[in-house]
Amino acid sequence: MKAGDLTTPALLADVAVLDHNLATMSAARPGPALRPHVKAFKTTALAARLAAIGHTGFCCATIREVEGMAAAGLGDDLLLANEVVDASRLGVLVRSGTARVTVAVDSSATIAAAAAGGVREVLVDVDVGMPRCGCDPADAGRIADEARAAGLEVRGVMGYEGHVQHEVDRQRRERRVARAMEDLTRAHSDVGGGVVSGGGTGSWDCNHVVTELQAGSFVLMDGDYARLDLPFREGLVLLTTVVSVSSRGHAVLDGGLKALAMDSGDPSLVGGGEVRFCSDEHTTVGGASWAVGDRVGLRPAHIDPTIAKHETLHLVDDAGAGGDAEVLESWSVDLRGW
Amino acid sequence: MKAGDLTTPALLADVAVLDHNLATMSAARPGPALRPHVKAFKTTALAARLAAIGHTGFCCATIREVEGMAAAGLGDDLLLANEVVDASRLGVLVRSGTARVTVAVDSSATIAAAAAGGVREVLVDVDVGMPRCGCDPADAGRIADEARAAGLEVRGVMGYEGHVQHEVDRQRRERRVARAMEDLTRAHSDVGGGVVSGGGTGSWDCNHVVTELQAGSFVLMDGDYARLDLPFREGLVLLTTVVSVSSRGHAVLDGGLKALAMDSGDPSLVGGGEVRFCSDEHTTVGGASWAVGDRVGLRPAHIDPTIAKHETLHLVDDAGAGGDAEVLESWSVDLRGW
Repeated sequence: MKAGDLTTPALLADVAVLDHNLATMSAARPGPALRPHVKAFKTTALAARLAAIGHTGFCCATIREVEGMAAAGLGDDLLLANEVVDASRLGVLVRSGTARVTVAVDSSATIAAAAAGGVREVLVDVDVGMPRCGCDPADAGRIADEARAAGLEVRGVMGYEGHVQHEVDRQRRERRVARAMEDLTRAHSDVGGGVVSGGGTGSWDCNHVVTELQAGSFVLMDGDYARLDLPFREGLVLLTTVVSVSSRGHAVLDGGLKALAMDSGDPSLVGGGEVRFCSDEHTTVGGASWAVGDRVGLRPAHIDPTIAKHETLHLVDDAGAGGDAEVLESWSVDLRGW
Repeated sequence: MKAGDLTTPALLADVAVLDHNLATMSAARPGPALRPHVKAFKTTALAARLAAIGHTGFCCATIREVEGMAAAGLGDDLLLANEVVDASRLGVLVRSGTARVTVAVDSSATIAAAAAGGVREVLVDVDVGMPRCGCDPADAGRIADEARAAGLEVRGVMGYEGHVQHEVDRQRRERRVARAMEDLTRAHSDVGGGVVSGGGTGSWDCNHVVTELQAGSFVLMDGDYARLDLPFREGLVLLTTVVSVSSRGHAVLDGGLKALAMDSGDPSLVGGGEVRFCSDEHTTVGGASWAVGDRVGLRPAHIDPTIAKHETLHLVDDAGAGGDAEVLESWSVDLRGW
């Protein structure tokens, strides 16, 4: 089947780019040194490809992702890298034996929730500079003691330097990653345990502290990360159809902001032309010539929330080939929702 | 059941606001003078409430929406207010008798698609100033002739003045709507037919030309439209849970840009405090005091694509009451996808 036979908008993943990105990352971070973050792609079929090359521990952002990974038989070692105040659904998985589940904690309340819900293993989440979750590095030891007192096994620490992932200047990025990881190292010495989890696509080769890298976006990349000097290539394309061509010089594609994440800006066109604006179900483009019925590809600015908008991710032989691409597999984006 | 018992993030719709907004619009645009746009809410249960007060003709933005409305028994008069190059799925509905389907056309190619697919009724879509779909007003008569020659019934014209919907200054908005509608009136005189379809929430009381208003966002409103002087109230809230509180003065909610549309900017907080930024699954907030486990509401900047991110829309007695709100009904957001 050709991509041109799909109902548009349709999300395409390029198999050659995917294989290249996985091989590149896996060479640098083999086996358990990479804990792929499924939030980037929310697709167990893609996670299974990572497991097949040795990355059998995964990072999740939601309870639904943990449940879905367990249901797909990918529950060897699942880290919910977020705090939760109700861990009962995670406890169900632990008790059923379908998954090993570790959850992040950064407070008395989240420790209590983990223990009450029936989760047995935790990481202490440490604030390494990004204003989001994580305890003060100076409190990490106390949090660990409290977790152990609640009967939990503390596997180690976690700290995500999300505030420096998109730093374009490489030397500056390296310095800022190192500074963030000093905090994590200090916390780790107070906490103990074998796991130091953190990092992401932007710090894939300059975070020398983590024992496991929590990267996800590298699998198919996006416009946001493409501005960095990374060896990973962009492999996600939203295939659309030209539904209208105006005498005023623009054309209209049948995919818009309900099919594309807009938090990092407009998508870009595969091939020539410029994106003028996105509406709910349309993208108005200009600067090139199209005919009604043409298939046109758009590269999203941010892949994680783009994939989360789709039921299906189609693996194709050449995502840049538009409607002529051969559809190799159609994967259910089965980890959506909460 | 209380909203506080729901898994968060959870999308809440306020029943009193919904009833107020529907009653206000329905008084001004009774029965067929309003063709509610289901793209705004993608929920047949909500559409059924509109049908129950006399609005039995609906506007759709996708083929999936048309199919879902037909399947829900709401297919009396469905307008797909977009061009399509493959109308075969619409033709299936027409032939089965489950829906009356009208589709927008603005070119020879889309006329051919409608005829080939088995759709029998069309509106000529006219460009009234927004750089998107629609033919040049001067071409509308020719498009209508071509459609009739292809065996299609031309019910009239459609023209969406989307470029002026969010014009904050009322007098300026009125003038710009009137100017856009001059083009539509001219096209209508060349096309014929009883239907002049267009307008939206922003032009609900200043578009004096359309025979049916294509409004949708008024049902629950959003931050974008709230800047206008409209009598409709905001009734959509994303209920979240505080999962982390930092000694640095911020707190973290468990709903982020995968649960909120970001094309029109950040959400706002119900109650005090300020939104600092949204991540995939988190919103970092500050300027007030919260404890881990607190339920906190966020009002999205744009409702249409926010609702499209959710499986369920919960109707509650008071969306501003957070976790204390009573859940009256839980509706499937059953018109998502393509």
